Amino acid sequence: MIERPHQHDEGRYLAPSTAHRALTGGPIAVAPTRGEAFVAAVRAGGGDVQPLDENTKGLVWLSETRSDELSDILQQHPGIEWLQLPWAGVDAFSSILNGLAGTNEQDRPVVTSAKGAYSEPVAEHALALLLATLRELPQKARAARWKDERTGLSLFGNRVLLVGAGGVARAFMDLLAPFHCEVTVVRRDPSQHMEGAAKTVGQDGWRELLPEIDAVVLAAAHTDSTRAMWAAPEFDALPQHAVFVNIARGPLVDTPALVSALKSGNIAGAGLDVTDPEPLPDGHPLFDIPECVITSHAADTPAMTRPLLAARVTHNTKAFLSGSPLRGVVSVEEGY
Amino acid sequence: MIERPHQHDEGRYLAPSTAHRALTGGPIAVAPTRGEAFVAAVRAGGGDVQPLDENTKGLVWLSETRSDELSDILQQHPGIEWLQLPWAGVDAFSSILNGLAGTNEQDRPVVTSAKGAYSEPVAEHALALLLATLRELPQKARAARWKDERTGLSLFGNRVLLVGAGGVARAFMDLLAPFHCEVTVVRRDPSQHMEGAAKTVGQDGWRELLPEIDAVVLAAAHTDSTRAMWAAPEFDALPQHAVFVNIARGPLVDTPALVSALKSGNIAGAGLDVTDPEPLPDGHPLFDIPECVITSHAADTPAMTRPLLAARVTHNTKAFLSGSPLRGVVSVEEGY
Repeated sequence: MIERPHQHDEGRYLAPSTAHRALTGGPIAVAPTRGEAFVAAVRAGGGDVQPLDENTKGLVWLSETRSDELSDILQQHPGIEWLQLPWAGVDAFSSILNGLAGTNEQDRPVVTSAKGAYSEPVAEHALALLLATLRELPQKARAARWKDERTGLSLFGNRVLLVGAGGVARAFMDLLAPFHCEVTVVRRDPSQHMEGAAKTVGQDGWRELLPEIDAVVLAAAHTDSTRAMWAAPEFDALPQHAVFVNIARGPLVDTPALVSALKSGNIAGAGLDVTDPEPLPDGHPLFDIPECVITSHAADTPAMTRPLLAARVTHNTKAFLSGSPLRGVVSVEEGY
Repeated sequence: MIERPHQHDEGRYLAPSTAHRALTGGPIAVAPTRGEAFVAAVRAGGGDVQPLDENTKGLVWLSETRSDELSDILQQHPGIEWLQLPWAGVDAFSSILNGLAGTNEQDRPVVTSAKGAYSEPVAEHALALLLATLRELPQKARAARWKDERTGLSLFGNRVLLVGAGGVARAFMDLLAPFHCEVTVVRRDPSQHMEGAAKTVGQDGWRELLPEIDAVVLAAAHTDSTRAMWAAPEFDALPQHAVFVNIARGPLVDTPALVSALKSGNIAGAGLDVTDPEPLPDGHPLFDIPECVITSHAADTPAMTRPLLAARVTHNTKAFLSGSPLRGVVSVEEGY
């Protein structure tokens, strides 16, 4: 089942970026391992897969740990016009990106990553945690007896605060649509209205709305302005039936404040795919709270992301060969 | 939050039934308790709410335990043309229904229930359990430590076997739509294709499909042909990564076979809102299985159903007064 692709639309959750460098196209190498799924993905995009040599124009790089080797390859093959990196984060390649940033834009490859490609499984995980916390699944999974009282909340018609407006947030809105929720989106630029949301507000406009919010979903990047944005005052302002889901990054949340909000019953539950610190150490108080489920950064597993990375490779191969915009272009200057 | 209605479409999940009796309409009583929400619901449908007297034409009955009293009222008020019963099941009123079945159809009230009205919360619970079992939330909620291996399955593109094709199944299909699953529906009459399903099969056509199924959702009525339809051979035929969700009725499943399938790893997880027996006794082996979550018949809580019953009352009031088809008409002969 794991590798069976659904009708994933590679363009749905990330706008294409235009590569500044003029690309001529040509043979594409898949390295340092052969990765049959990715060879097939290049071919599905019309690419001519050849071993790495002086004619190589495109390179699909499948290792996160062999970046020294990649650095050498790029220096020895200045004809490489397009480099596809694996996975969404490119931290492992920061020295290569720094090196490229110091060169003339026309003399370096266009670098693409998988950023934005894994929106669907991560958004799905957010919905799983949201429904689970509303329906009290964490405490019911822990309970070892039948519960006579029928409790739990429905998501239909709820007021959801969605923090973030990137690919994951967009995919989450799609999954949320049949539930007719009233969604408020928090994003840096509130003038860009999120399709399907009732309201789009900026970083300063959301705190006064908290008493009217039933569920919070964090899907924003970790930046200076989002760090610890959820602390004691924010948790205190939520109604006691509210649930809290974080599939973004642990440091967006002040962990002791979250522990305290859950323990005191100031919020009803939490579904956390990410924590601060991470991994959460054994014996951490969050593990002991029946209303909390922690999924250990598993919103997108390698098995889920593999076919989505393959779809990105196919898309970018087509784009590379036809001169149209590639997806997931990395800014070598900004390093992401 | 609990009582805030979303844009619930009362007609979406249940076709109207035509009442055979010609209805003239008239004053409607709400009894034996006044139930302000239901008085408001009658008024929202254009009804004239009056205390029970000789002019009463419609009766919204809000108690499940005072059926003797209701029986007396019906005998003393032969002018009552429409009786709305509370909740979806009408077992508590079987003696009344039996009594009415012995009378001339033109001389008895049209009886309606809430059947079909609670499809949305029940379907939502099915999705909650499905996502939770795929994402391993039951075992992660029980675990008291960070898990280094990133595991879990995505629902996107999965092959789902949906048993049942009533209002809950229809509502579930709506929630499932954004996940692009390949759904096979099992129903009594497979010539009635379920919208959105890849395949609709009859009671005899589904067992050979099981090796290709990733997730099973039971949403069928409990009848002679569905009792214990899931037993050892069916569980054995599923792949080991498959998950199993039951939000229908416990007796559709052979419980010892389910326990054994879970314990042996023949299936990956189970989400059960209903069990056999119910309540499940303390110490039952299902409570000890980390891959299993039991929600104690809480797919639709009283708080969830109240606004939906109100919507049904409003719809039926309008229909009663305008002579158009009522929803949830109970067959007094068949007793449901």
